Amino acid sequence: MQNRIYINQVKAYNGQLVKLCGFVHEVRDTKKMQFVVLRDISGDIQLTIFKNEESSHLNTLVSSLNTQSSIIVLGTVNVDDYVKLGGVEIHAKEIVVVNESASPIPIDMKGIQESSKDIRADWRFLDLRDNKKQLIFKIQTTILNAMREFWAKFNFIELNSPKLVATPSEGGAELFCLDYFGKQAYLAQSPQVYKQMAIAAGFDRVYEIAAAYRADKSHTNRHVTEFVSVDVEMAWIDSVSDVMEHQENWLKYVLKTIQEKHHKEILESFDIDIVVPSNQFVRLTMTQAKQIVKESGYIVPETTKGDLDPQAERILGAYAKDKYKSDFVFVTEYPVSVRPFYHMYSDDSKYTYSFDLLYNGIEVSTGAQREHRFLKVAKQAVSKGVLPKDAISKNDEVDYSKLPIGMDNYFDCFKYGCPPHGGFGFGLSRFVMQILGLDNVKEAMFLSRTVDRITP
Amino acid sequence: MQNRIYINQVKAYNGQLVKLCGFVHEVRDTKKMQFVVLRDISGDIQLTIFKNEESSHLNTLVSSLNTQSSIIVLGTVNVDDYVKLGGVEIHAKEIVVVNESASPIPIDMKGIQESSKDIRADWRFLDLRDNKKQLIFKIQTTILNAMREFWAKFNFIELNSPKLVATPSEGGAELFCLDYFGKQAYLAQSPQVYKQMAIAAGFDRVYEIAAAYRADKSHTNRHVTEFVSVDVEMAWIDSVSDVMEHQENWLKYVLKTIQEKHHKEILESFDIDIVVPSNQFVRLTMTQAKQIVKESGYIVPETTKGDLDPQAERILGAYAKDKYKSDFVFVTEYPVSVRPFYHMYSDDSKYTYSFDLLYNGIEVSTGAQREHRFLKVAKQAVSKGVLPKDAISKNDEVDYSKLPIGMDNYFDCFKYGCPPHGGFGFGLSRFVMQILGLDNVKEAMFLSRTVDRITP
Repeated sequence: MQNRIYINQVKAYNGQLVKLCGFVHEVRDTKKMQFVVLRDISGDIQLTIFKNEESSHLNTLVSSLNTQSSIIVLGTVNVDDYVKLGGVEIHAKEIVVVNESASPIPIDMKGIQESSKDIRADWRFLDLRDNKKQLIFKIQTTILNAMREFWAKFNFIELNSPKLVATPSEGGAELFCLDYFGKQAYLAQSPQVYKQMAIAAGFDRVYEIAAAYRADKSHTNRHVTEFVSVDVEMAWIDSVSDVMEHQENWLKYVLKTIQEKHHKEILESFDIDIVVPSNQFVRLTMTQAKQIVKESGYIVPETTKGDLDPQAERILGAYAKDKYKSDFVFVTEYPVSVRPFYHMYSDDSKYTYSFDLLYNGIEVSTGAQREHRFLKVAKQAVSKGVLPKDAISKNDEVDYSKLPIGMDNYFDCFKYGCPPHGGFGFGLSRFVMQILGLDNVKEAMFLSRTVDRITP
Repeated sequence: MQNRIYINQVKAYNGQLVKLCGFVHEVRDTKKMQFVVLRDISGDIQLTIFKNEESSHLNTLVSSLNTQSSIIVLGTVNVDDYVKLGGVEIHAKEIVVVNESASPIPIDMKGIQESSKDIRADWRFLDLRDNKKQLIFKIQTTILNAMREFWAKFNFIELNSPKLVATPSEGGAELFCLDYFGKQAYLAQSPQVYKQMAIAAGFDRVYEIAAAYRADKSHTNRHVTEFVSVDVEMAWIDSVSDVMEHQENWLKYVLKTIQEKHHKEILESFDIDIVVPSNQFVRLTMTQAKQIVKESGYIVPETTKGDLDPQAERILGAYAKDKYKSDFVFVTEYPVSVRPFYHMYSDDSKYTYSFDLLYNGIEVSTGAQREHRFLKVAKQAVSKGVLPKDAISKNDEVDYSKLPIGMDNYFDCFKYGCPPHGGFGFGLSRFVMQILGLDNVKEAMFLSRTVDRITP
């Protein structure tokens, strides 16, 4: 039997017999003709079958076809502008039902009345039998490959760090605990400890794209308990600016790749015109950012302790778009109070050499130069309560017996000549959500985990 | 200040002043001269400092240099065959100690007497400050990128499936359990359920490279509790042969890429000559394989229930190497007794349309055509005890109320026209171990998790 071709390839075979495989998306049975919309990963096509004696077995089969059944079709390609669906149809000669679908389908797949979010999530595999939704994951694949291509040019090493850990990496909150052969273990909230360990191991530049976990009970459009974290760490930076510059060039490369590969289909399906930023990303210190937010008339609640909140981030996004035509804003110099102990502090300990990246008004990344000096990072950990006060003696000796389990491994990294370094964490699904203007991060995830949902 | 260059770039700068950054690997202080071996991710280089008045401050600094400190060096490149280490040295003009290492170093880093495996594992970040060990991870990065490049050519979609699951995917044994907001959850042992769900969602061809978990208490050189699983699933295959052919072409592409990029350094560091197989991988049915093992004089223990054991795999590896000069052997037609319920059974239910791939006598992959027909896969699940006997009524109706929690989501995938499909799981670290002739899978992992170890 001949090789299968994809639906988006048929036009090249005008007049020829081809084999197509896919799902029955729709059946229309009229007096003189039958129409089947066949769908595969590359698109939709119309199968046309005349009702006549010669085709009677085919006519009977089509009449009883359940939608969503998977079928193999042999037929002749007819390129004809008259055909509404893509200007091409298949005159079907033979149809084999390979796996018949049950009926009815438990969710709306015909665009009549979209099923509720919850029902769609229950039946995600049916929800995703949709060209537009599948496009999200094609684009995500392009994004992931472009990210790695960029790093490959600079000889980055790919890291696969353990997610089963003995020590909470980002403080004690929002942890998933599990039993590890009788010992307590946790799921890593980020690969922070390990990407820094890789720097201490002399790996120079590393990245990891992997799951991270937060036992977060938030019900928002951008919180899930398991998410894909994109992480980078670079040794021998001169300052946090090197990290920001790297991130900016990397994102421009990613956007350029998306534009080259998917510009037309993103415009068609999402009505979004992918543009590669030509200017430098806007950079605002926290002081400048707060001034702008204030001038807009919004007052950031005191509960943020000096941080920005989502509303302030939206205002800054709008400001950058309006004033600089930029979708991206780096906010720098976050106060020590809202940053973890491992960020490098300014000399006066007023702020950190850190940044957030806002994309269309939403935070998609946090980065920093890390504190690589053993005694300094230990002291910062004490002042943040990560280490007990008596972990450092008066003559500046670190007492390892006072360190929580597993913490010794982290602090050891700085003891034997760890080079200066910095990096960032980046939320893949948030980025995809923002590129495509999706209203929920879960739409950018194959399956999502929230406080209410661990299935399917 | 000028830009840093890497050590493997210096020869292009003969006579020029360059800036290098790295670890002090060794210091030799002689009467008239001082030598420092500096190491970065790209290699080692000798810094040469004459002892004289002009350099007195530098001489004092070098005399007190602790090995493993990280330093910045400014110096002039001198290409000279006389220099044993690579035929090039740096006449250092200035050295800045950026982060001084504590002393002594807790493991042997000078190649005098290798520290024990356990001590090296405790101090993995120091153990990895080694050109040969770092090369393993550069090669692994090349492998991962080559794998994805190959898939990109065929429009595969990258999957990020959840590792937090409500249902054991591969039966009940060797599971890590955790509390998920008051409900029982598990860590996924493989993405099997989800890659099949992606096929049911019409994704056509998918891959995932991500962590998988087994609460395995084995103490062997190839068992860990958290490992990187490389997973592929392809819709619309004609038979399991399509999966094997894909895997073979994919591995040849990966090996070709490794050869192009790392042939020389693998030969130098591991004394291994990377060769891309030109012939087809050897294919043996289980019947043939058993005959070969029998003829070699080895009797596979009955406890394997019809499977091969590691010794039998080694014999088959040697046979293929000897008779066909092949490092790879596909063993096909595994009996139903040793395969999971979701593999497709032969018509007589004697064997499965499945395979294992042996590489240099070790199993690195298991693959199969999957059973995509709803009633068949349900019946196979019943006969394997995955579903209770009363889950299927006499008139072949599946009673969903009898399905274990979360199992409904899996079986639903086959109910609505799931296309025929097949795929494989592939152990990344085992593959790297076999390519480079490492004696333990843990040497191919940045950090490893075993029954005895969850740190660092």
